[in-house]
Amino acid sequence: MKAQVAILVGSDSDLPVMAKAAAALEEFDIPFTITVASAHRSPKRTITLVDSFSKQGVKVIIAAAGMAAHLAGVVAAHFQLPVIGVPLKSSALNGVDSLYSTVQMPPGIPVATVGIDSAQNAGLLAVQILATSDNELKKKIIAYKKSLAEKVEKKAKILEDKGISQYINEHLKNS
Amino acid sequence: MKAQVAILVGSDSDLPVMAKAAAALEEFDIPFTITVASAHRSPKRTITLVDSFSKQGVKVIIAAAGMAAHLAGVVAAHFQLPVIGVPLKSSALNGVDSLYSTVQMPPGIPVATVGIDSAQNAGLLAVQILATSDNELKKKIIAYKKSLAEKVEKKAKILEDKGISQYINEHLKNS
Amino acid sequence: MKAQVAILVGSDSDLPVMAKAAAALEEFDIPFTITVASAHRSPKRTITLVDSFSKQGVKVIIAAAGMAAHLAGVVAAHFQLPVIGVPLKSSALNGVDSLYSTVQMPPGIPVATVGIDSAQNAGLLAVQILATSDNELKKKIIAYKKSLAEKVEKKAKILEDKGISQYINEHLKNS
Amino acid sequence: MKAQVAILVGSDSDLPVMAKAAAALEEFDIPFTITVASAHRSPKRTITLVDSFSKQGVKVIIAAAGMAAHLAGVVAAHFQLPVIGVPLKSSALNGVDSLYSTVQMPPGIPVATVGIDSAQNAGLLAVQILATSDNELKKKIIAYKKSLAEKVEKKAKILEDKGISQYINEHLKNS
Amino acid sequence: MKAQVAILVGSDSDLPVMAKAAAALEEFDIPFTITVASAHRSPKRTITLVDSFSKQGVKVIIAAAGMAAHLAGVVAAHFQLPVIGVPLKSSALNGVDSLYSTVQMPPGIPVATVGIDSAQNAGLLAVQILATSDNELKKKIIAYKKSLAEKVEKKAKILEDKGISQYINEHLKNS
Amino acid sequence: MKAQVAILVGSDSDLPVMAKAAAALEEFDIPFTITVASAHRSPKRTITLVDSFSKQGVKVIIAAAGMAAHLAGVVAAHFQLPVIGVPLKSSALNGVDSLYSTVQMPPGIPVATVGIDSAQNAGLLAVQILATSDNELKKKIIAYKKSLAEKVEKKAKILEDKGISQYINEHLKNS
Amino acid sequence: MKAQVAILVGSDSDLPVMAKAAAALEEFDIPFTITVASAHRSPKRTITLVDSFSKQGVKVIIAAAGMAAHLAGVVAAHFQLPVIGVPLKSSALNGVDSLYSTVQMPPGIPVATVGIDSAQNAGLLAVQILATSDNELKKKIIAYKKSLAEKVEKKAKILEDKGISQYINEHLKNS
Amino acid sequence: MKAQVAILVGSDSDLPVMAKAAAALEEFDIPFTITVASAHRSPKRTITLVDSFSKQGVKVIIAAAGMAAHLAGVVAAHFQLPVIGVPLKSSALNGVDSLYSTVQMPPGIPVATVGIDSAQNAGLLAVQILATSDNELKKKIIAYKKSLAEKVEKKAKILEDKGISQYINEHLKNS
Repeated sequence: MKAQVAILVGSDSDLPVMAKAAAALEEFDIPFTITVASAHRSPKRTITLVDSFSKQGVKVIIAAAGMAAHLAGVVAAHFQLPVIGVPLKSSALNGVDSLYSTVQMPPGIPVATVGIDSAQNAGLLAVQILATSDNELKKKIIAYKKSLAEKVEKKAKILEDKGISQYINEHLKNS
Repeated sequence: MKAQVAILVGSDSDLPVMAKAAAALEEFDIPFTITVASAHRSPKRTITLVDSFSKQGVKVIIAAAGMAAHLAGVVAAHFQLPVIGVPLKSSALNGVDSLYSTVQMPPGIPVATVGIDSAQNAGLLAVQILATSDNELKKKIIAYKKSLAEKVEKKAKILEDKGISQYINEHLKNS
Repeated sequence: MKAQVAILVGSDSDLPVMAKAAAALEEFDIPFTITVASAHRSPKRTITLVDSFSKQGVKVIIAAAGMAAHLAGVVAAHFQLPVIGVPLKSSALNGVDSLYSTVQMPPGIPVATVGIDSAQNAGLLAVQILATSDNELKKKIIAYKKSLAEKVEKKAKILEDKGISQYINEHLKNS
Repeated sequence: MKAQVAILVGSDSDLPVMAKAAAALEEFDIPFTITVASAHRSPKRTITLVDSFSKQGVKVIIAAAGMAAHLAGVVAAHFQLPVIGVPLKSSALNGVDSLYSTVQMPPGIPVATVGIDSAQNAGLLAVQILATSDNELKKKIIAYKKSLAEKVEKKAKILEDKGISQYINEHLKNS
Repeated sequence: MKAQVAILVGSDSDLPVMAKAAAALEEFDIPFTITVASAHRSPKRTITLVDSFSKQGVKVIIAAAGMAAHLAGVVAAHFQLPVIGVPLKSSALNGVDSLYSTVQMPPGIPVATVGIDSAQNAGLLAVQILATSDNELKKKIIAYKKSLAEKVEKKAKILEDKGISQYINEHLKNS
Repeated sequence: MKAQVAILVGSDSDLPVMAKAAAALEEFDIPFTITVASAHRSPKRTITLVDSFSKQGVKVIIAAAGMAAHLAGVVAAHFQLPVIGVPLKSSALNGVDSLYSTVQMPPGIPVATVGIDSAQNAGLLAVQILATSDNELKKKIIAYKKSLAEKVEKKAKILEDKGISQYINEHLKNS
Repeated sequence: MKAQVAILVGSDSDLPVMAKAAAALEEFDIPFTITVASAHRSPKRTITLVDSFSKQGVKVIIAAAGMAAHLAGVVAAHFQLPVIGVPLKSSALNGVDSLYSTVQMPPGIPVATVGIDSAQNAGLLAVQILATSDNELKKKIIAYKKSLAEKVEKKAKILEDKGISQYINEHLKNS
Repeated sequence: MKAQVAILVGSDSDLPVMAKAAAALEEFDIPFTITVASAHRSPKRTITLVDSFSKQGVKVIIAAAGMAAHLAGVVAAHFQLPVIGVPLKSSALNGVDSLYSTVQMPPGIPVATVGIDSAQNAGLLAVQILATSDNELKKKIIAYKKSLAEKVEKKAKILEDKGISQYINEHLKNS
């Protein structure tokens, strides 16, 4: 199927973190593509890719980068539809540099920024964006949110039954 | 027309900043509604509002708040579609508190965060989200982006003609 | 006995840190309850819980969360009595995000915030609050404070006797 | 009437900010006392005051200080009941120094910290603490919270009626 | 004469700050060009400009931008010779965002970053770079540095003669 | 009389802030000298000055500088006796840059750092250092500390008599 | 011999870091005493200790603490002579909290602050303070500084002879 | 061959990080020298070295230091040509202290600052500076940049072929 979302990573070393964005898209059966494109080391490829995504009908781009994270901003400068930026915790500054470089965009060119290393939320946000015109998808999100609440309730039930010491021993020791 | 976007502000004192979000939506002819709803002072109203927006077919909610800015997160907990968070610079910490409180959401509940006080970008991001299923809107965004580039080029031309001193005197003195 | 304090954690992974809050309450024989409730993943349950605590006569709620830590604020919006917030060090930002999200509450809705990961102090603060109307408890706190001072004095005595090198070797090597 | 709350300020220049704590206590008819006591310039007086408050039956102390804000911590070291710390925005660092100096207390000696310059919330937190053993006071807090929500709703109504431009012109121009 | 240095500003509102970079180049008789080019609003023009500077023999580019300051990085991605980045203090974060966005470049693509708003130093650094192959310029820098030292000495002499109070009254009151 | 303390400022624009260091030394009748010496613009003069102070019997040097504040560190590298560093709030970063540049000295070369813009405390610290071998001076410090406490007590008395509103109106309105 | 310097640690867990302060004093044959005294857990003992040090002729107190590090400030409030503060890196905030709590003292009560965990520099600063009235000690400091420079030169010589790769292999692999 | 670049490290423990600067220079066949010189522990040697580099025709100095990183600034005060500063992540503050101490230079004395621990970029920036007057070197940089882009494209191709899971397993597991 034709990709509706494209995931761009600034470096292949970002892939283990960004795997959760891919997993979130897979969970909601969203066709997507993922590739490497550095705003700094392969700038022309990056622009070519964005233009090509635009023509292929990609509706959302997720861009992840660390340090002076320009990737999402550069992509947003060339793309008409939503760009989601994922600041990565890959530097001495623990991702504050990436966060500021991603979120503090000048007027006219927004980047929808999620938390540091929050790849899963980037994927879910893409799903929510697609769901604005897809009622089936919206229903799946409602179900997903319900499942989140149920997981919390299930854990709460066990904790209330067993008490904190037993819960920690049985459920958290190997995490 | 039925509102496609809802703007929520945590306090009416946030309205002058958020007027730019409204202006951006108006520029693209997006029907929207705007109201006040505090996550902390009127928590029940906030949840009722979100449920009501959901039923009325609102597709994107923009939530703006300062300090420990919980509004966007609380809205996102109750809404299935995209929530855009605008951290406001209203505190002693110049908005770093609002930024962290808005963007660092836990897994499962994303907030699409824009820069501190970036109301205009919040509006534009909402437009981009709606444009994922609206080709006319997408064309307007392309035209908008072209106009941004042309404004830069026009200023550049004047600067190159007049030189920096004359440009500053004639074009920036009253700003 | 009827719980006087309720401890809420945003995620079960916070329990090992928060065990010290429970221990502090146990040390002072304060009946308490502990459960999981996410402001974002199970928002309705959270509000229901707070209302239920209110009816059962809970006098203090301790709420612990990491990242954009909204739990204490959301609880405070719905509870009339003191809410103690424990910002957790669970993110890339080492808890600064949680601290700001917990302490920088808007006018009208305070959260009594303790230090990052300071679960023990959250428990002790709850005890102090209960002691404002319980003289026996107040006496226990006086005794507790005295024991803290005595522990310092005892260590000081050993250090003065043995000197710093021997003290480090004998008392700190396995810590 | 005998003071139930004592407000301590590190410097008389902190009084304009802290007047809101006094106002909050007055709004709830809580008898209180307010005085100046520096942890650094008048350390002995500070300790004597705390001991005297303890004997007079003061149940909560609010301590406000800026910069390396030690006042709340020093008071907490000598007091058995809750100490509320208000970090003040009086330095080059905009109160981050005061916040860290107030909230990051070591194990054993909690300070219930509110936001930077959040004097009103300090007063309200003191009221909530007293309300743990005073049902009349608890009812007043419920009424107060209801009034907060009503104020939000009233403003929301006007905003929805008039629209954002008119609201800003009529209600926010002189603020 | 053919420009040896090009100054790029992300917005014309940056010109008053960047005038000092131009003044520094003029003081050393370095031919330069200055124009506006936004990495985000006019991305294609920016790349075209850099390629054109490259062909015209420009040896150093100074790029100034605020917020998520991507301009210097984008220019560096396309230019083979030194790029000097000037982070601007134009946002809620006082330029920390611009500084991190400019200096924290990934391996392979350096940006020679100067201090926040340090336009004069950007100009001087460009002069120093050109002086690595121009002995006359190097001599001018030596003379310039000598003049800096002499200015300090002259002020020191007046201060030592007049004393601090008179110096402040006569020399600093109107600054 | 022979100077016992030397005050160095990195720029004459720092003199209004540093006048309080001079005033503190005058209050304790400490002979001192003050001059301008930049670690960066007049590096050789700075070293010559330090050597000359050393020979003249100066016992403490106070060095004040802003931004990347190297002055205190450079002085400490050349001086055998205590160097007090005063970080100045002169930059976009409000003095955090100066603070870190002054206090975070490597092993072997300490700088006794005071707070940002804390010129008065720098003067008092120099007095305390000289008092380690001067009993008369030590007595003056005891008297000075007593006067600080008395000032606090006097203000406290007025506040307790007049109440907070009247105190603010009569004593703080023109400050 | 009578102690000239007293080292106070807020907790015995700080001793391994502070051992370097003791070692520096020993290297210069300065008699000193070291003990534990918490500003918060044993406040009365702390004040008693300071008064006793004052009477015994202690000339400098080194106070080390982490988190909301009040120890140095509390000691300075009670001591007439220099207090050196060592902020410790013991918290989630890596010592920024301790640094601000130690250095940002209010006017009138300075603390001579060294870098985070810089115990050795605290010891050396105490030695420099004592050397203001002890020429033999001053000569030892001159010799110490010379030895620091010689160590650098020796390493530089080896590096220049062997080259960087061999130096790293032979001299740094086990560090 | 005569050194065109000199690398100075503040401590030999910085050599493993700075080896990448040396490697970058070697990759472009730039003759260089490397040595240890502390701004604080061997200040006179540092100045002598800079003067000697100046006479020997060194065109760029790279200076690397941690904490209150004064080395680059001190070198820049004495050198006429470009000084590149590398802030090192060696302290409790993860290099923010070094970054501010290096980049926030006062007017007149620029330091071309690269990212924290960005030794490779420091080397490449030196190469770019030399290439402003060396066309062969400029061609090598063009080739180098092309190789960076090709590496990205090659990785992208593998990722597109294998998919993210297989890529992570085969190419990133041992990194």
